[in-house]
Amino acid sequence: MDAVVRERADVDIVEVGPRDGLQNEDTLLSVAQKVELIERAVAAGARRIEAVSFVNPRLVPQMAGAEEVMAGVPRDVGASYIGLVLNRKGLERALAAGVDEINVVIPASDEFCQRNQGCSVADMLSVYEGIAADTVGTGITVSVTVSTAFGCPFEGDIPPERVVDIARRAAEAGADEIALADTIGVGVPRQVADLVPRVRSVAPAATLRCHFHNTRNTGYANALAAHEYGVTVLDASVGGFGGCPFAPAATGNIATEDLAYMLRRSGARTGADVGELARTGEWLGAALGMQPPALLGRAGDFPT
Amino acid sequence: MDAVVRERADVDIVEVGPRDGLQNEDTLLSVAQKVELIERAVAAGARRIEAVSFVNPRLVPQMAGAEEVMAGVPRDVGASYIGLVLNRKGLERALAAGVDEINVVIPASDEFCQRNQGCSVADMLSVYEGIAADTVGTGITVSVTVSTAFGCPFEGDIPPERVVDIARRAAEAGADEIALADTIGVGVPRQVADLVPRVRSVAPAATLRCHFHNTRNTGYANALAAHEYGVTVLDASVGGFGGCPFAPAATGNIATEDLAYMLRRSGARTGADVGELARTGEWLGAALGMQPPALLGRAGDFPT
Repeated sequence: MDAVVRERADVDIVEVGPRDGLQNEDTLLSVAQKVELIERAVAAGARRIEAVSFVNPRLVPQMAGAEEVMAGVPRDVGASYIGLVLNRKGLERALAAGVDEINVVIPASDEFCQRNQGCSVADMLSVYEGIAADTVGTGITVSVTVSTAFGCPFEGDIPPERVVDIARRAAEAGADEIALADTIGVGVPRQVADLVPRVRSVAPAATLRCHFHNTRNTGYANALAAHEYGVTVLDASVGGFGGCPFAPAATGNIATEDLAYMLRRSGARTGADVGELARTGEWLGAALGMQPPALLGRAGDFPT
Repeated sequence: MDAVVRERADVDIVEVGPRDGLQNEDTLLSVAQKVELIERAVAAGARRIEAVSFVNPRLVPQMAGAEEVMAGVPRDVGASYIGLVLNRKGLERALAAGVDEINVVIPASDEFCQRNQGCSVADMLSVYEGIAADTVGTGITVSVTVSTAFGCPFEGDIPPERVVDIARRAAEAGADEIALADTIGVGVPRQVADLVPRVRSVAPAATLRCHFHNTRNTGYANALAAHEYGVTVLDASVGGFGGCPFAPAATGNIATEDLAYMLRRSGARTGADVGELARTGEWLGAALGMQPPALLGRAGDFPT
C-alpha cells in the first residue's frame, strides 16, 4: 500500500464500517477479514478509519480481536485509526494497541444511555472527562460523539439544548472534535440546520463532524445539509451496513460509496475512489451474506 | 371511500406507483390489484394519482388493462387521475377512459428518446404539440415530463439549456404543468438548484413539478431541494418501486411514505398518512414478491 498522497479534500469521510458497520451484524468477521476491510478502505482513499472498539467482547462479540486488528492494519499510508472507548480500561487498551485517535460516545438521552451504556448521561460525561484528562500528553486525538442527538427510540424528540450542553461540556474537557450522531436515523436537514450552528457556537475550537444513518431515507439529505452548513467531516460506512440494536429491522449508516458519489457530483472533493468503494461494499456484502444497503454497487457510477 | 376533505397541503405528492412504480416490475398485477392499490393510495391521502398508461400493452404488458383500471377507480373522493399518453391514439383512449389529466413524456436526450419512444426529441415535441392542441376544450389538464433531465444513461450529462428549451416549447404549447424528471437517478441537489429557477423563468404560468428516482441514494435530498426552491408538486411511488428498463438492477422512484415522513418532519404538510402509506408499500411488496425499497415500513415511524 503506497497511496499516501492524495488530493486535498473538501469533506473528510471517516470510514466507520469496521466498527459501527459491523457492530450489529449477525455474521462475525475474522480478524483477517476486518484487516482486509481496512486495507480496502485505505486503497479506496480513506484516511480516517473507525477501526475498532475497546468494549467487552463478551458483550459485543462483533468487536472481539481489537488488539489483533490494530496489529494488522497498514501503517505509513497516511491513515489515522480511531478506537471507540467507553471507560478507562478501554482507554488503556486503546493506548496499548496504538490507535491514533479515540472516540467516546455520550448519548443525549438518559434512557438510551442507561440501556446502551449502563449509566446516566451525567455519569457518562464524568467518565468522559476522566478519559480526556488521561489522554493529555499522549498525542492522541480525542473526539466525542453525541449520540441520539436527532431523536431517541425511547424518549422521542431530544431537546436541542441538551445536545448543545453535552457538546459544551465535551469541548470544555478538551475534545478535539465533536460529532453529532443520528443514531437511529430519524433526523431531517432542518435539525442539522438548527443544531450545527448552535454546537459550533459553544465549541468554536473543536472540529465539527456529523454521523448519519439512512434508516428512514433521510441520511444523505442530512449529510448534504451538514456540508452546506460548513461541516467538513462526515462519517459513513462502506456498503451502508450498521444499524442500531434497538431498531433491528432497520438499515444502517449512510454508505461511503453513495455519499462520495453525491459529494463528487456536488463539486466537493473527498479523495475517495467511488468505484473502489462500491467494489468494497459488494465484497463486504458477500462476507456478511447480505445485499449492501448501498446503491452504487448495484446501479453503477455515473462518471461525469 | 369518503375521505374527500383533508388539510391543505404545502407539497402535493403525485402518487405514481400504479404507473411508474409497476411499469418495470417482472410481476404483473391484475386489474383488481391495480384498483386496490389506487384505493389504498386514496385512503392514505393521495389526491393526484398517475393511474394508467395508454401505451401498447403488447410492448408494455405491465400497463395492460388501462381502460378497466380507470373504470374501477374510486370517483367522487376528490382524486384526480392521470394517464400517460405518448401519441394521439393514446389521447383518444385516455379521453374515452375518463382520465382527469394526461401526462406526456419528452426526453431531453435524443438517444434515450429514440430507444424509449422510437423517435427524436424534435419529433416527440411535435407529437406533444399535436396532443396539446387536441386537448383544447376537453377540460383535461396537461402535464409534460421532461425525462432524463438530470442525466442520460447513453449521452451522460445533459446540458441544462436543452431541458430549458423543451420546457419553453412545452409551455408555449399550453402545458399546465412541467415536471423535471431524474429518470435514471443520477442527479444531485445542485442540479435542482440550477434547473428549477431556469425552467420557472421560461414557463412562468406552468406549475413546476419534480420526479426523482433514488437509484443512487440522492433522490430524497433532491426532493427536499426542490421543495426548498419552491416546487410544490413532487412525484413518489408507494413502496419505492419502479425503475428504468436501461438500469435493470437499480431501485426505483422515491417512496411516497419516506418522502411524506421527511416532509412532515421538515414542517411541510402533505395530507399523507405516513403509517397507511407504509402499510400500502408493504402490501404492494407482498403482491410483487419483493421487499420494498421504502424504509419506513421496516424502520417504523418516528411520530413526533
